[in-house]
Amino acid sequence: MSSKIVLGKNQYGKAENRVVKITRDTDRHEIEDLNVTSQLRGDFSAAHFEGDNGRVVPTDTQKNTVYAFARDGIGSPEEFLLRLAKHFTSEFDWVTGGRWEAEQYAWERIIANGKEHDHSFVRKGQEVRNAVVVREGDSTYVISGLSDLTVLKSTQSGFEGYPKDKYTTLQETSDRILATAVSARWRYNNDAVAEGRIDYNAAYESVKALLLEGFSEQYSKALQETLYQMAQKVLDAHPEIDELRFSTPNKHHFVVDLSPFGLDNPNEVFFAADRPYGLIEANFERDLISDPGNAWDGIAGFC
Amino acid sequence: MSSKIVLGKNQYGKAENRVVKITRDTDRHEIEDLNVTSQLRGDFSAAHFEGDNGRVVPTDTQKNTVYAFARDGIGSPEEFLLRLAKHFTSEFDWVTGGRWEAEQYAWERIIANGKEHDHSFVRKGQEVRNAVVVREGDSTYVISGLSDLTVLKSTQSGFEGYPKDKYTTLQETSDRILATAVSARWRYNNDAVAEGRIDYNAAYESVKALLLEGFSEQYSKALQETLYQMAQKVLDAHPEIDELRFSTPNKHHFVVDLSPFGLDNPNEVFFAADRPYGLIEANFERDLISDPGNAWDGIAGFC
Amino acid sequence: MSSKIVLGKNQYGKAENRVVKITRDTDRHEIEDLNVTSQLRGDFSAAHFEGDNGRVVPTDTQKNTVYAFARDGIGSPEEFLLRLAKHFTSEFDWVTGGRWEAEQYAWERIIANGKEHDHSFVRKGQEVRNAVVVREGDSTYVISGLSDLTVLKSTQSGFEGYPKDKYTTLQETSDRILATAVSARWRYNNDAVAEGRIDYNAAYESVKALLLEGFSEQYSKALQETLYQMAQKVLDAHPEIDELRFSTPNKHHFVVDLSPFGLDNPNEVFFAADRPYGLIEANFERDLISDPGNAWDGIAGFC
Amino acid sequence: MSSKIVLGKNQYGKAENRVVKITRDTDRHEIEDLNVTSQLRGDFSAAHFEGDNGRVVPTDTQKNTVYAFARDGIGSPEEFLLRLAKHFTSEFDWVTGGRWEAEQYAWERIIANGKEHDHSFVRKGQEVRNAVVVREGDSTYVISGLSDLTVLKSTQSGFEGYPKDKYTTLQETSDRILATAVSARWRYNNDAVAEGRIDYNAAYESVKALLLEGFSEQYSKALQETLYQMAQKVLDAHPEIDELRFSTPNKHHFVVDLSPFGLDNPNEVFFAADRPYGLIEANFERDLISDPGNAWDGIAGFC
Repeated sequence: MSSKIVLGKNQYGKAENRVVKITRDTDRHEIEDLNVTSQLRGDFSAAHFEGDNGRVVPTDTQKNTVYAFARDGIGSPEEFLLRLAKHFTSEFDWVTGGRWEAEQYAWERIIANGKEHDHSFVRKGQEVRNAVVVREGDSTYVISGLSDLTVLKSTQSGFEGYPKDKYTTLQETSDRILATAVSARWRYNNDAVAEGRIDYNAAYESVKALLLEGFSEQYSKALQETLYQMAQKVLDAHPEIDELRFSTPNKHHFVVDLSPFGLDNPNEVFFAADRPYGLIEANFERDLISDPGNAWDGIAGFC
Repeated sequence: MSSKIVLGKNQYGKAENRVVKITRDTDRHEIEDLNVTSQLRGDFSAAHFEGDNGRVVPTDTQKNTVYAFARDGIGSPEEFLLRLAKHFTSEFDWVTGGRWEAEQYAWERIIANGKEHDHSFVRKGQEVRNAVVVREGDSTYVISGLSDLTVLKSTQSGFEGYPKDKYTTLQETSDRILATAVSARWRYNNDAVAEGRIDYNAAYESVKALLLEGFSEQYSKALQETLYQMAQKVLDAHPEIDELRFSTPNKHHFVVDLSPFGLDNPNEVFFAADRPYGLIEANFERDLISDPGNAWDGIAGFC
Repeated sequence: MSSKIVLGKNQYGKAENRVVKITRDTDRHEIEDLNVTSQLRGDFSAAHFEGDNGRVVPTDTQKNTVYAFARDGIGSPEEFLLRLAKHFTSEFDWVTGGRWEAEQYAWERIIANGKEHDHSFVRKGQEVRNAVVVREGDSTYVISGLSDLTVLKSTQSGFEGYPKDKYTTLQETSDRILATAVSARWRYNNDAVAEGRIDYNAAYESVKALLLEGFSEQYSKALQETLYQMAQKVLDAHPEIDELRFSTPNKHHFVVDLSPFGLDNPNEVFFAADRPYGLIEANFERDLISDPGNAWDGIAGFC
Repeated sequence: MSSKIVLGKNQYGKAENRVVKITRDTDRHEIEDLNVTSQLRGDFSAAHFEGDNGRVVPTDTQKNTVYAFARDGIGSPEEFLLRLAKHFTSEFDWVTGGRWEAEQYAWERIIANGKEHDHSFVRKGQEVRNAVVVREGDSTYVISGLSDLTVLKSTQSGFEGYPKDKYTTLQETSDRILATAVSARWRYNNDAVAEGRIDYNAAYESVKALLLEGFSEQYSKALQETLYQMAQKVLDAHPEIDELRFSTPNKHHFVVDLSPFGLDNPNEVFFAADRPYGLIEANFERDLISDPGNAWDGIAGFC
């Protein structure tokens, strides 16, 4: 057991910079609404061991930079983060990498008097889109994702054929509610990222639609199988995506026993439980993928 | 100062019963998703002062009743709560009233392969609908509402002409972002409730649309004025509604000063602040309204 | 049904001003940590109906005033709010009342090297203290309270002797866990407030201790009875308090049936459920109390 | 770009099993309050690709096992998770590993009539303790931790000597508030784990105290330096700990400019901001440590 203490992985920055960008070139405004986190990596030993801040680009400066860069527009969260990554790693030679993350909240135009309004919006409120850009030396990784896309199928789901032991009390069923709040993250191929070949906004809309379609189409023998069906749709349609990861609660809906009250319940009345819940995490990837580096580190719940 | 302790207002019951009702008469299922709270009122002094539970209908029984009643369908949260109110006040003669509340979460059909799916749904995730039914003796009150309808207009809003004192530092502006998360509650006329003349689902959709339209249409001199414009639309179109109450945060979006970085900022880049926030609460009502009783008691933040 | 729209009750202001006050007269610092909301009342019709802001003291000014007043110290949340109330109703003659609310977060000194540290603190994290001051014309009301004081007794609690109907499935028990998160609010006698006779900090600590003691001492036939025992202790010891209100969830802890696994479970292993939960609300007051006015309006969940 | 889809890392189980264990061998009861998550790893390809559940030990069974094992006591979250890990990997030969996690909530005895009560408790409410056990084949990793330990020092903190660029507006200071909510995780040496040499409860209390002491003692040139001082104390005192990781927000407290109101503010009145916040993540480890395997995967925010 050595007593010498060394500094392992570390990063620091400004978290949750809430940026709202209005594009008002014409009377028909556009809105982009982001929550941006910037963290820098490099050799910051002196700051930790000696309190020497000579290399510590203030988190306040990182915040200022985020807002200044927004002046030129966002475009997509991924492109915005890539611009930040390039800036910080080129501006400060001791900053050898970093991690930039954003959530994006969707808005839609208010319908007033039968028409889409020019500058009035209502927050869509469904899933939250997210993006992570990791830079390590010359490598750049882009992971896109979404969270809290809550879906439910009221039939065509079962769970049977599982092993039993002395702690098993669950009954098999071929007709249950299947519900989950999809959290999915997909990593783009490094070459596709480097060559700027990706339309991140279009890809996002497509992936979301395919996830919903994959959830819906087939009978589900288990959430595990359904995740595969969802992943298959995405990976088949998007060659620029190397891997897709899920962290999905199985949100249990229990059929309420109404027989004490003289009532039947043919899968019509359910109790939606909070906790505990099933938790299924699975990564699907092509058999040949570009190097992921440490891009996935620190993302909660994606095994 | 008297030392004799008496029991003031009181009620008790089961809160947050999560009920999901699937209607599956045909292959095209319907889903209703509610969070129901039931609370009974009456003379429960013996329970408090003597530990005599002879009149305490268990909260567990209230829960069971909620699920049993769901077997016959929901219809609308208001109608479902009215059925519960009638049941409890007629079943137990010492139960002279109560309060029943529900939130309802909206779902929409998943679009798969270009078509609305029969039994797969995605949670809409925008505002939360709510309803309160209060019964006091022979009187029945119905309050409907919504919360967390987040709206924003990127121009056509200002704030000028306010009084200044020694603590005033705010600058006047005729072009700012106006944003709020609308929480609104409206109370229906007692006669309209009693006569069963209200289509609660249709009214809800109409009120929501009118609130959005009212928010959008005109230049806003202050959130106060905009609330009136929203209320006016609702009360003009819905004679069955007696009053409309708002509790609305003014969600500040501050123009970021980019001049230290050599950039202008013509209302394009904003910092969306969390706290503090403005908080505007206002009730609009007809000059002649049906008696509200104590229907509004215990609703947070609606002065 | 009249179509004329009038303005009912209304108030507006700045919510959740987070104020941290350090008193550093000596090396041994003191910390006070508050979340303050200020709302003004008066005739604001012109603002709503005509967009005339001539009487609308900006919420930004209210915020500035909160911070400026903190320069002279806090003392107790109640006294701080009373100072704000006096200021706003005397500074602006059209401000005839208002509502001021605060939460206070407790900190304790860090123990370092066996001693209480002079200027390093750790947040206590137990209950949140709160206070509300309402001013209506010449009347001033003070309500103090606490929330989220989570308590549990592992025995000496039962629930028996309740009425049964067709929806009853609950079994009687004379040994269960009783757990709740106490939210309590108590209103001080108006004269005691007006005469400045109350030591709010001392009263708070005493009331909290008495609530805990009242929860612990006796066998509980129902949470209702236990609330009375808690109220009785407080009202007996504090003649300056007129009434005490509770909103308390019955946080169910279910004995897990371990018999399928060949195990007994003599009230040792419990499942702590989230929802639904019992919800018991009760107000205890002296038979003669000072006029409450509308002081309780808008407080959630206190019937 | 290959189109063959393979299954990457995956795990599944039951999350957030809320277990409350009362030990009642004597009249003086003990309480342990945990939130346990169990996830299994192994070859579950058939479940994903073919919907074959033959190896899918139901998450419901995992839940039952958690409660059944609690019948024999908890002891410490780490020991409880180690028992679960051993059970699942020995009971099912295709289960080659897994991840077990727990949060533990602390309670203290209520003081009633001057004495600690035998069976009445109040939740302490300060930090949340946590533990993770990861099993991969024959290797077992134990990571303990805590979250939400909110600390503040009201002086003896500064930030100076940092690099400036065109986006820098921050002013240097040698007297500011330093505040953070400590999230820390420490991994025990694999041999110490294997040999059962660790008293996890005692170590936890010691580490928490040392973190507080390390935060307090010295002038802080930056949160980075303070984290090192905290880590040093822990690693010096606990040879059985190989590494310590922090994820700590810098919770900004801004001195309010009171000069417009004719007031000074010598670091007495602060605005406690929510977002954005600094975020400092750093891992401290001995120069020679036991193999961490993938024990840290999926833990949010620990780079």
